[in-house]
Amino acid sequence: MKKNRKLGRGVAVVGAGMSKFGMYKDKDSKDLFAEAFNGMIASVDKGIDPNEIDALYLGNFSNDFFMHQSHWGPIISDLIGMTPKPATRTEGACASSALAFREGVFAIASGFYDMVLVGGVEEMSKRTTEEVAEGLALATVPYEGRVGFTFPGVFGAVATAYFAKYGANREHLMNITIKSHNNAPLNPKAQFPLTIRDMMNAKMESMKKKGLPAPDWQDEKAFLGDPKANPAVAWPMHLFDCCPISDGASCMLLVGEELAKNFTDDPIYVAGIGQGSGRGFHASPDMTYFEATRYAAREAYGMSGLQPEDVQFAEVHDCFSIAELVHIEDLGFFKAGEGYKAVADGATRLDGPKPINTSGGLKCKGHPVGATGVSQLFEVWTQLKGKAGKRQVPNENLRIGGAHNLGGTGGTCTFTILEKR
Amino acid sequence: MKKNRKLGRGVAVVGAGMSKFGMYKDKDSKDLFAEAFNGMIASVDKGIDPNEIDALYLGNFSNDFFMHQSHWGPIISDLIGMTPKPATRTEGACASSALAFREGVFAIASGFYDMVLVGGVEEMSKRTTEEVAEGLALATVPYEGRVGFTFPGVFGAVATAYFAKYGANREHLMNITIKSHNNAPLNPKAQFPLTIRDMMNAKMESMKKKGLPAPDWQDEKAFLGDPKANPAVAWPMHLFDCCPISDGASCMLLVGEELAKNFTDDPIYVAGIGQGSGRGFHASPDMTYFEATRYAAREAYGMSGLQPEDVQFAEVHDCFSIAELVHIEDLGFFKAGEGYKAVADGATRLDGPKPINTSGGLKCKGHPVGATGVSQLFEVWTQLKGKAGKRQVPNENLRIGGAHNLGGTGGTCTFTILEKR
Repeated sequence: MKKNRKLGRGVAVVGAGMSKFGMYKDKDSKDLFAEAFNGMIASVDKGIDPNEIDALYLGNFSNDFFMHQSHWGPIISDLIGMTPKPATRTEGACASSALAFREGVFAIASGFYDMVLVGGVEEMSKRTTEEVAEGLALATVPYEGRVGFTFPGVFGAVATAYFAKYGANREHLMNITIKSHNNAPLNPKAQFPLTIRDMMNAKMESMKKKGLPAPDWQDEKAFLGDPKANPAVAWPMHLFDCCPISDGASCMLLVGEELAKNFTDDPIYVAGIGQGSGRGFHASPDMTYFEATRYAAREAYGMSGLQPEDVQFAEVHDCFSIAELVHIEDLGFFKAGEGYKAVADGATRLDGPKPINTSGGLKCKGHPVGATGVSQLFEVWTQLKGKAGKRQVPNENLRIGGAHNLGGTGGTCTFTILEKR
Repeated sequence: MKKNRKLGRGVAVVGAGMSKFGMYKDKDSKDLFAEAFNGMIASVDKGIDPNEIDALYLGNFSNDFFMHQSHWGPIISDLIGMTPKPATRTEGACASSALAFREGVFAIASGFYDMVLVGGVEEMSKRTTEEVAEGLALATVPYEGRVGFTFPGVFGAVATAYFAKYGANREHLMNITIKSHNNAPLNPKAQFPLTIRDMMNAKMESMKKKGLPAPDWQDEKAFLGDPKANPAVAWPMHLFDCCPISDGASCMLLVGEELAKNFTDDPIYVAGIGQGSGRGFHASPDMTYFEATRYAAREAYGMSGLQPEDVQFAEVHDCFSIAELVHIEDLGFFKAGEGYKAVADGATRLDGPKPINTSGGLKCKGHPVGATGVSQLFEVWTQLKGKAGKRQVPNENLRIGGAHNLGGTGGTCTFTILEKR
């Protein structure tokens, strides 16, 4: 790999919006994207004229499967009054909208366009859980899904391999779940804005009301360790290690760097973009890392000239608790095999030295797959703008944040670094 | 629209390949892409090292639906030994790989990458005709497919509107079909390398052999006008107005302009790229043109500084005969309502002043939808390189050619101009 890839023209993010994530019987993909788009418009400090937008990139994994409708680029272009301007869909499984972001960056950096809207959408909850599982399995590599090695099984195997190699155990994963659930109530867009303690107490209260003997849950880990409260899905992945089924949309507005001050006095700049591809675990000598994430990180650090220690906080793809653990190591935040100890020490909490998933992560914020990548960047942008409210990272010099997005079983991974200058 | 969009860095095409198009029970998407990739490697005059390729963009419409497998970027990246380098899928219905080409151009023009592989693939023939029709309908806008207004019906309505407005009739569409079929036997990659006269004679021969009374077909138009030989699909679209179901793959190698001479002494350059989006015919005041094509053409002409009369030949998206007719007008080659007269005069024949679809077009070359856009550019590149063999445009000063790709019912349209300098 050429060491330090650079863009010929810098790119800034001047607006961002997302719908509330959740399961909506009464909202469709267009409703959700409209909510994200209106939020984005309202977020631009000095305002923008939507007629100035030159092009749209839209990430969507498989509304083809979920909603029996493909070709979403022009549908969304029509929705927001952009036709006949170009609209392009990108697909990289759960990393689909991180790819849209990257193509928006390239389109501006090429000099061709000045203002590009990037975003993502997915509408999953109108299908049954079994159908959603079938749809998601389309994103595994052929050697995996066809033999039944679907996502919970794959990440269960990753956790087992990690445990065996580094001596971690389920309690270490519980630390991640508890931390994300502690952040979620502070995020008004989150699908599950409840702490584990809230849920534990509510469950005990309800059992008492029914006259049932209340379980002896001394703390959150006792709750998470009780197979009745937190049943196994694919050992050691239990219910609370897994992200939910969600509907949602997200978008961001990109402009050429030299134009950014027309829209805000404090633009957020794209410091580094990285993307990698992976073969699947049938071809991997070791299940405790993702080569595609490592490659994406090298590209992004190389472009930005930054090191892992410069990234002050990050959104990291936690489709399962173990995924967050493995990726904070792959991104270089912690040494391989050391991440679980750092998490146990509180390093990744909102008030720790390296806050991870301040949004609540996919686990609690929700994971409408095509919308996730840009929603992670929405969180990083919101933090850097100092607009994160109760979940604002308590650091007065917050300047650099990252977002890591994973698609499939590591088939597509991205890492993007945003920076306030 | 900003008048003349430009790229900050020029881009050249130094290699191109495509699989033979057809219906293959014994070849899958990987087999087909490998065939295209090997053809591309062999086409680079001074050779290339595939390890130098920085990234992949792959157009695919809906192998999700057709093959129950999405996330094709990393599958193809793995196939050609590119992992962990980035691989991104683009989707714009039947224009999916023209979008891949465009993103490859942006990625290089941005300065980030030097060498990018772009291509497309689709595997359709393993599904029944009814299933393929259902899959293709995913690409219509929601107001169309859901009320049964699928592709043959849409283009039948376009033809009816064109006939009513301009006084054309079915005979004028037959001129297009006959012309494309005359080109196809000259193209070794074509799915149907047969002229209409060949098929007519074969049919008469076979009927005679069976002792049946041979029909009185004086010429090709008599054959095409006989409803037994050429039954109606959605009037006035008959069987021979419609492209077939196909499997296939295509790819091209793009490099930064300043690097092109390392790979060939006569590179072909990207002179203009254009893309537009459309709302669907429910929102159109007139069914005789495609606003998205007109927008794409304005972008491409604006960037290149060229006019329609400068484009010496073109591949034009002829999913149906009427589509070719409407688009040669939308692209400015002929005035609105005048195209059918020019076609009748032979203007678009291989030896005419504006050859259209020298490859045989989608009608005869085949239309594996995700592969089509780059396969059109393959034809333009092959002609400009003077490598088109028997179908070479007979013009010693061939320098500029265009490729027009349409997705859905005009939801996504592109126009790309390649140039030899």
